[in-house]
Amino acid sequence: MFSLLNTLVEKNKKYGREGKVASYIPALSEANPDELGIYVVDSRGKEYYSGDYNAKFTIQSISKIVSLILAIRDNGRENVFKKVDVEPTGMGFNSIVNLEASDSGKPYNPMINAGAIVTTSLIDGKDVNEKLEKILEFMRTVTNNDDISVNERVYLSEKETGNRNRALAYFMKSTGVLDGDVEEILDLYFKQCSIEVTARDLARFGAVLANDGVIPWTNEKFIPKDVCRIVKTIMVTCGMYDASGDFAVKVGIPAKSGVGGGILATVPRKFGIGIYGPSLDEKGNSIAGINIITDLANELDLSIF
Amino acid sequence: MFSLLNTLVEKNKKYGREGKVASYIPALSEANPDELGIYVVDSRGKEYYSGDYNAKFTIQSISKIVSLILAIRDNGRENVFKKVDVEPTGMGFNSIVNLEASDSGKPYNPMINAGAIVTTSLIDGKDVNEKLEKILEFMRTVTNNDDISVNERVYLSEKETGNRNRALAYFMKSTGVLDGDVEEILDLYFKQCSIEVTARDLARFGAVLANDGVIPWTNEKFIPKDVCRIVKTIMVTCGMYDASGDFAVKVGIPAKSGVGGGILATVPRKFGIGIYGPSLDEKGNSIAGINIITDLANELDLSIF
Amino acid sequence: MFSLLNTLVEKNKKYGREGKVASYIPALSEANPDELGIYVVDSRGKEYYSGDYNAKFTIQSISKIVSLILAIRDNGRENVFKKVDVEPTGMGFNSIVNLEASDSGKPYNPMINAGAIVTTSLIDGKDVNEKLEKILEFMRTVTNNDDISVNERVYLSEKETGNRNRALAYFMKSTGVLDGDVEEILDLYFKQCSIEVTARDLARFGAVLANDGVIPWTNEKFIPKDVCRIVKTIMVTCGMYDASGDFAVKVGIPAKSGVGGGILATVPRKFGIGIYGPSLDEKGNSIAGINIITDLANELDLSIF
Amino acid sequence: MFSLLNTLVEKNKKYGREGKVASYIPALSEANPDELGIYVVDSRGKEYYSGDYNAKFTIQSISKIVSLILAIRDNGRENVFKKVDVEPTGMGFNSIVNLEASDSGKPYNPMINAGAIVTTSLIDGKDVNEKLEKILEFMRTVTNNDDISVNERVYLSEKETGNRNRALAYFMKSTGVLDGDVEEILDLYFKQCSIEVTARDLARFGAVLANDGVIPWTNEKFIPKDVCRIVKTIMVTCGMYDASGDFAVKVGIPAKSGVGGGILATVPRKFGIGIYGPSLDEKGNSIAGINIITDLANELDLSIF
Repeated sequence: MFSLLNTLVEKNKKYGREGKVASYIPALSEANPDELGIYVVDSRGKEYYSGDYNAKFTIQSISKIVSLILAIRDNGRENVFKKVDVEPTGMGFNSIVNLEASDSGKPYNPMINAGAIVTTSLIDGKDVNEKLEKILEFMRTVTNNDDISVNERVYLSEKETGNRNRALAYFMKSTGVLDGDVEEILDLYFKQCSIEVTARDLARFGAVLANDGVIPWTNEKFIPKDVCRIVKTIMVTCGMYDASGDFAVKVGIPAKSGVGGGILATVPRKFGIGIYGPSLDEKGNSIAGINIITDLANELDLSIF
Repeated sequence: MFSLLNTLVEKNKKYGREGKVASYIPALSEANPDELGIYVVDSRGKEYYSGDYNAKFTIQSISKIVSLILAIRDNGRENVFKKVDVEPTGMGFNSIVNLEASDSGKPYNPMINAGAIVTTSLIDGKDVNEKLEKILEFMRTVTNNDDISVNERVYLSEKETGNRNRALAYFMKSTGVLDGDVEEILDLYFKQCSIEVTARDLARFGAVLANDGVIPWTNEKFIPKDVCRIVKTIMVTCGMYDASGDFAVKVGIPAKSGVGGGILATVPRKFGIGIYGPSLDEKGNSIAGINIITDLANELDLSIF
Repeated sequence: MFSLLNTLVEKNKKYGREGKVASYIPALSEANPDELGIYVVDSRGKEYYSGDYNAKFTIQSISKIVSLILAIRDNGRENVFKKVDVEPTGMGFNSIVNLEASDSGKPYNPMINAGAIVTTSLIDGKDVNEKLEKILEFMRTVTNNDDISVNERVYLSEKETGNRNRALAYFMKSTGVLDGDVEEILDLYFKQCSIEVTARDLARFGAVLANDGVIPWTNEKFIPKDVCRIVKTIMVTCGMYDASGDFAVKVGIPAKSGVGGGILATVPRKFGIGIYGPSLDEKGNSIAGINIITDLANELDLSIF
Repeated sequence: MFSLLNTLVEKNKKYGREGKVASYIPALSEANPDELGIYVVDSRGKEYYSGDYNAKFTIQSISKIVSLILAIRDNGRENVFKKVDVEPTGMGFNSIVNLEASDSGKPYNPMINAGAIVTTSLIDGKDVNEKLEKILEFMRTVTNNDDISVNERVYLSEKETGNRNRALAYFMKSTGVLDGDVEEILDLYFKQCSIEVTARDLARFGAVLANDGVIPWTNEKFIPKDVCRIVKTIMVTCGMYDASGDFAVKVGIPAKSGVGGGILATVPRKFGIGIYGPSLDEKGNSIAGINIITDLANELDLSIF
């Protein structure tokens, strides 16, 4: 496995040159487009890796999985899906049209920004700090990494440039989909997007999901099996922005990407996979990352279909 | 298994009363909303059934799978996906807005009407009859049923009331997505939708897909494995109209429904499932059918996630 | 006035070089982009002209005024506006999205293609020929020109390339907005768009509208005053495609343009104006035509506001 | 004229019962639906009135005219129309879809909320107070009423419930259409909407516009003629929410309504008209107000078309 991963990293590194790192905030634009790392954790907790698996980057949209899981834990599945739908959408991830187009007035799914702002708003806690602590605690457990924390510089930039998300949130506030103080909800949202991780962290989190919520290295039942299934399903239908359908056809593995360059993938009953490659394609997915996971899925016949 | 199926049919029959049979053409409106049948074929070809598994109905949108497979067989996967995308859409199955909203000008996926009109147009043949014969031949093979044929009365009604599909087709003709004679393409499209099947026919077809294209009762390799995977993936993301996301979360099995009341489901490496229940929910899916397959998936732990 | 028109033609001719003649059918693409003609008829029937006022071109969208007037004459104002709204739209003139976006299911107004197809469908007559004869007879009266007829070559091209209009018509057929045989309605629509006129013809028609429906050269009351008002109002709000608002602000005169290069304008109680300049701007309006009428309106203080 | 106005008020009062007063904030919901007042000022400053012409109400959307005029005065016409288009739209007045649908990214016109937020943002001044003072000063001059001021209670309610406007503003901030501090711009916007007026105030303002910007009672040239024309044009195409086209066809007078129940109308070279009737139709226009102005326009043949 190590040699396969090495081969694939060497082969796919070049794609970094065909994409672009995210540029809407300084911290992201400084990423090195040539970096590519991959980390694989199997269902017994055995780990394999290659390349820049230890490079740090912000989790960004991959945090949408976390707020979905915590929202369900705190409110129950039914109450969450009263506020956010689970239908995929071919439209862009931060579209406002989406909100109005939805018959129910609810965001289409928890993997678009509007949907994730809703799930974030549903996390219980007495203030932003307590809620953030819950998110960080969750992340530390599923990554077996006590150092998980927020990148303050990224957080401040996100907050400053987050007017599109503000528009989404105030719109949902006006339609009654969003409860609570908008600026506080957004503050937590920007913070969770700015959590710093490595490909290893993502792989371990993916292994917990693959393992139906049981942590491979402790055998603790940490996330309910049915919640893991919901998350993996939504990852397939909506996880890779509006390239989700194409990714499902070509790769066939539940996965979620972030504009920080990360991909978290999870092969039910088999593997958690973490990838880092900050150069993005037009849809906002790691370009080398998409290529390396496509190769890996083909080599190991990982498609769930 | 027989007794499980019997139990589930008895339990779920009542849901027929909560929906409505399709009413846009006479033949469909005459269906008996109380009927419910299920048929299961395992990967070695063993068959189980209960209820109205032998009732005949028209295949309707489930034929979209057939035209997709034949379009790929005749043109190659790349050429097909140049003309039709594979992105799910939260909007209605026969939306015209969808067509214009798509950046590429292509229909979002082959499971909406516009997309299926495109795949139908890509089937090779010297005229409508020859192309229809290919479709019927395919169906007869995957169902092991030489009697498969078109219900003429339904076909004539579909043709007469098909102005929305005509609008979609002429729109795609005007944008260059659709080649050939529009009325001929629609004629074939209406005919393929009017093919008459039973739950048994659908279950056998589903078993072939589950079996990666190998026919369980002959061991013939009939559909390439990668084509089966594409089809199963698109069934998950787009198969149940705009309830696809919800169905994936709740059931987690590739499935395709039709307004004739049929559902074809396929559990990779395990089962083909055919269901008939003509009473539909608001999204256009068999209401008792959705309920019985949800129960079956839970009982047998069939989710692929 | 003659010298003013000469000056303005000379000054504005150059704009033809900044636009493009319509190219979707051969006959239109052969037009000479340098041509510019203007014709003015005052309320007593006095006529002034300059440039290529005698060049022939097809009336195209300006015929939408004719079918609106005839539809109202044959059905009454209320029955027409049950089928087509009078709200302007910022979207393109041949948008299908428009149709679905409308709450009422009706086209937004009679100046977009969908709306004009509806008004054309409402003209009484036993067949296409009889209906066309009514349109031609109307045109001959308001232009005082017995030679008005259809350009067969343009008609055949329009018919051949008219798939977008076919899509609109079949869509409206499917929603019940359009009654009757779609192909026959479209045939009449393509014919009325292909009527050949000159700037003089348009100016005289405009003078009748300006004169509240009384023909200046015969004093015959030909169109009811309230119908003239409706037409002039809709010309202001919707007459210049999606540049209608901009044109109203800059020029302030009811006007309707066609992709053949014509503009018909009408200054209540004062003037009918006909313009020909086949080179179009991005919105589909005669580029030199827009410029010359802007100058004329400023010189003579013609704005109705 | 007095007796005509009396007759029309008596005749049209009853329509108040067929509509509903605005209910999104307490102050508006307390209005008396039976009230109806009309005030007419001719071009020499002569005044006529009947009914509840002296009742106070908030100006609401009619303030969009004021911010448009001040934005043009402070920035020039070209700079304003770089930021906001002048195209009518058949969609709702507070639609977010509108913003994204626009090719230019600009709001369609200054009479929808998004557009008015932009014009408000373009008023010069060192802070909200100075800018508000400019608006009030302008209003006091065109109404000859030094008591014009903000209704604090309405302002606070508007501010509290204004999340849809916040969404619009942050969206435009994110696309670069809106400059400056969003909350400050909205504060000014909510204040200008809460200015209290009577039908007399609106009639006098309308007379200034009718009179090409010259104040009838002082002969002062207060607003440039071309700005008055722009305003009157936009009132015709976009002034009555998405009933603008219908109103133009039926009445044919530039007018602007507000959900406070006011209508300001202006008949070029003839009259300014102010109406108050707080009961609204489905489009948000004063229901008795629309009826009385329709009668008045017919009686006096006021249509500009």
